[in-house]
Amino acid sequence: MRIGYDEMVRRFDEVLTETGFSEARSVLLARLFADATRDGVQSHGVLRFAGFIRQMRSGGTDIQVEPELVGNLGIIEQYDGHMGVGPLNAHFCMARAIELAKENGIGCTALRNTNHWMRPGNYGLQAVEAGCIGICWTNTRQFMPLWGSMDPKLGSNPIVFCIPREEGPVLVDMALSQYSMGRLGRHRKAGERLPVPGGYDLDGNPTTDPEAMVEERVRPLPIGYWKGSGLSLALDLIAALLSGGKSAYQVEQQDAEISVSQVFIAFDIESVLAQQDRRAMMDDVIADLQSSQSLEGHERPRYAGEGMLEHRRRSLEEGIEVNDEIWSRITDL
Amino acid sequence: MRIGYDEMVRRFDEVLTETGFSEARSVLLARLFADATRDGVQSHGVLRFAGFIRQMRSGGTDIQVEPELVGNLGIIEQYDGHMGVGPLNAHFCMARAIELAKENGIGCTALRNTNHWMRPGNYGLQAVEAGCIGICWTNTRQFMPLWGSMDPKLGSNPIVFCIPREEGPVLVDMALSQYSMGRLGRHRKAGERLPVPGGYDLDGNPTTDPEAMVEERVRPLPIGYWKGSGLSLALDLIAALLSGGKSAYQVEQQDAEISVSQVFIAFDIESVLAQQDRRAMMDDVIADLQSSQSLEGHERPRYAGEGMLEHRRRSLEEGIEVNDEIWSRITDL
Repeated sequence: MRIGYDEMVRRFDEVLTETGFSEARSVLLARLFADATRDGVQSHGVLRFAGFIRQMRSGGTDIQVEPELVGNLGIIEQYDGHMGVGPLNAHFCMARAIELAKENGIGCTALRNTNHWMRPGNYGLQAVEAGCIGICWTNTRQFMPLWGSMDPKLGSNPIVFCIPREEGPVLVDMALSQYSMGRLGRHRKAGERLPVPGGYDLDGNPTTDPEAMVEERVRPLPIGYWKGSGLSLALDLIAALLSGGKSAYQVEQQDAEISVSQVFIAFDIESVLAQQDRRAMMDDVIADLQSSQSLEGHERPRYAGEGMLEHRRRSLEEGIEVNDEIWSRITDL
Repeated sequence: MRIGYDEMVRRFDEVLTETGFSEARSVLLARLFADATRDGVQSHGVLRFAGFIRQMRSGGTDIQVEPELVGNLGIIEQYDGHMGVGPLNAHFCMARAIELAKENGIGCTALRNTNHWMRPGNYGLQAVEAGCIGICWTNTRQFMPLWGSMDPKLGSNPIVFCIPREEGPVLVDMALSQYSMGRLGRHRKAGERLPVPGGYDLDGNPTTDPEAMVEERVRPLPIGYWKGSGLSLALDLIAALLSGGKSAYQVEQQDAEISVSQVFIAFDIESVLAQQDRRAMMDDVIADLQSSQSLEGHERPRYAGEGMLEHRRRSLEEGIEVNDEIWSRITDL
C-alpha cells in the first residue's frame, strides 16, 4: 500500500503522543521516522517504529530528558545525552552545531551517553536545510575485525556527509561495514551470492558466497578491508575523546548497544552557495558522474544521494510504499 | 643501505638549498621527505625526492610563494596556494588550523590552487605534535568509477585522521582507492593475485587477478565499492566549496594533476589528553585490538598506525633503509 507523507507523520505523532511524548518532541520524532521511510530507508523508519514504541513504553528511557551541556573545548560543545531518546538527542546536537556554524562558520558538538539515532542521514539533511554542510557519525558495538583476524573489535560506526545543492543534496550515509548484518542474513537465506565480498569462508578468506560463511563467522567486512577498519578506529576514538563518552569497546561491555558517542559538525556555506561559479562547479561534477557508461547487468550508475532523491520524489507524488501488514501493526499500536 | 635520520635531512636540505629554497623552507621540506621515509612511506619520501627536485629546477613553480589568505567563512580561513610548493603549502595551512584550534577548540583552513602534498600523513602528525586531532584531505585527478561503470570519474582523494596518544599516534592515511595504480601494476608484473579485488575483468566484474585486468580497464576500485565512491564525491565537493578551488573534474581538465583543493581541520584536545580516564580509554581500545587472533597465513593484525610506529622505531635505531641506487641518485643531485 501507499500512504501519504502527512498521513504517516500524523499516525506516528498520535502513537508517540499516546506514549507520553510532549507535543514538539512527538511531531519531530514522527517526522524523523517518516522522512527515513519517504527517502527509502525503511529499516530505520517504518520497520523500526513499532519496536521503538515498545521500547519507550517499557519504561527504561526518560523520554523527556534533553542533552545537557557538560563542558566545552573552545567553541566545541560537549553534551551528555542522559541515555535519552537517540533521534531527539542527535537532532538537538546537530541543531546546536548549526547554530554554532552560523556564528563561527564551523560548529561542532559532541554527545555522550546517547542511544541509537535511527537513520543517520536525517541529521545531515537537517544541516543542509540550514544551508550547511553536515558531517556526523556515531560509534556502535563491536562488529568488524582488523584485517587478518575474524575477531569483532571495531564498530560499524555509521558516518554521514551531506552537501546542499539546489537540485537536492548529495548524501553519503553509510556504515563502515560493506553490508549490514541484516543484508548478509537475507542473501544467505535466499541462497544468493553477494555482488562483492561481505564475509569470511571457513579458511578466513573474504567471500561473496553466503553459504560458505559459517554462522559464527558471519562478520561484516569493513569497507576497504584494512582501510575501513582504520577509519572505524579513528571515528570511534574521536567521538569518545571529543564527547568524553564511551568507545565501541566500552559500548560492547554493556548488555545492549546503548550509551554511544556521537559527533556533529556543520559548515555554514550559505554565502558560497550564493556564488554562481560554485553552483556551476557542482552541476558540472554531477553531470559528469551522470554521463558514466553503465556496465552490462548493472543499473544506471548513480551518485551518492541520487537514488534517495528519486525515491523521495516518488513517495511524495504517489505516497510512501509500506507493507500492509507492517502498517496495520502500526495502526494497532 | 641504512642512513641516519639526521644525515638524510641534511642531504635533502643541501639539495633543496642548492635548488633555491630559503633556509627555513628548505629545512622543513627536507624534514617532510625524511619523515615519510623514516615512517615507511618511501613512495612519498626518498623515492619521490629526485623527481621533485627536477620539477622545482625546471622553473615552472614559484618556490618562495606562500599561501595567501583570500577569504573566510567565519573562523574558517580560505587560502590561495598560488600553485606553490605542495608540501609547504599544506604544512602552512595545517599550522594555521592548529593556531585556530588553540584559540577556538576547532580550527579549519581550506586551500585552493595547490600542488601534490606528498605524504598526507605528515600533516596529521603535525597536528598531533601540537596536542590536536588532525583531519585533512585533498582532491586529485579522476581515477575511480561509480559502481556499475568503469569510467574514471572520481578522485582517489587521500584523507588523514591522526589522533594523539602518549605511546604514539593512531594514524589513518589512505587514498580512497583500494590499491594505488603503482601497486596494481606491481602485482600485475609479478603475476600475483591481489588479496582482495582491485580492478575489473573483461566483463566488468571486480577481480583479484591482475592478469584478467585489461590495460585500459585497470581502474582502481574505490574502498567499499559504492560506499567509497560516495565518500570520494563528498570530500571532493567539500574541498572545492570550502576553498573556492577546483573539483576533481576540473583538475582532470588540466594537462597534469595540479591546482588541487585541500581541507585541514584540527581539534585541540590537550585538556582531554590530561585526563587519566581518557588515556585509559584509548589504552583499552588499543589493547583490545592487539588481542585479536590472527588468521592462518596472515601477519599479526595491526591497528592503524602501529606498523608506522614499528617502522619508525627501527629507522631511528638502525637508520632508515634506502635502496643504494636511489640514494646515489640523490647524492648526485
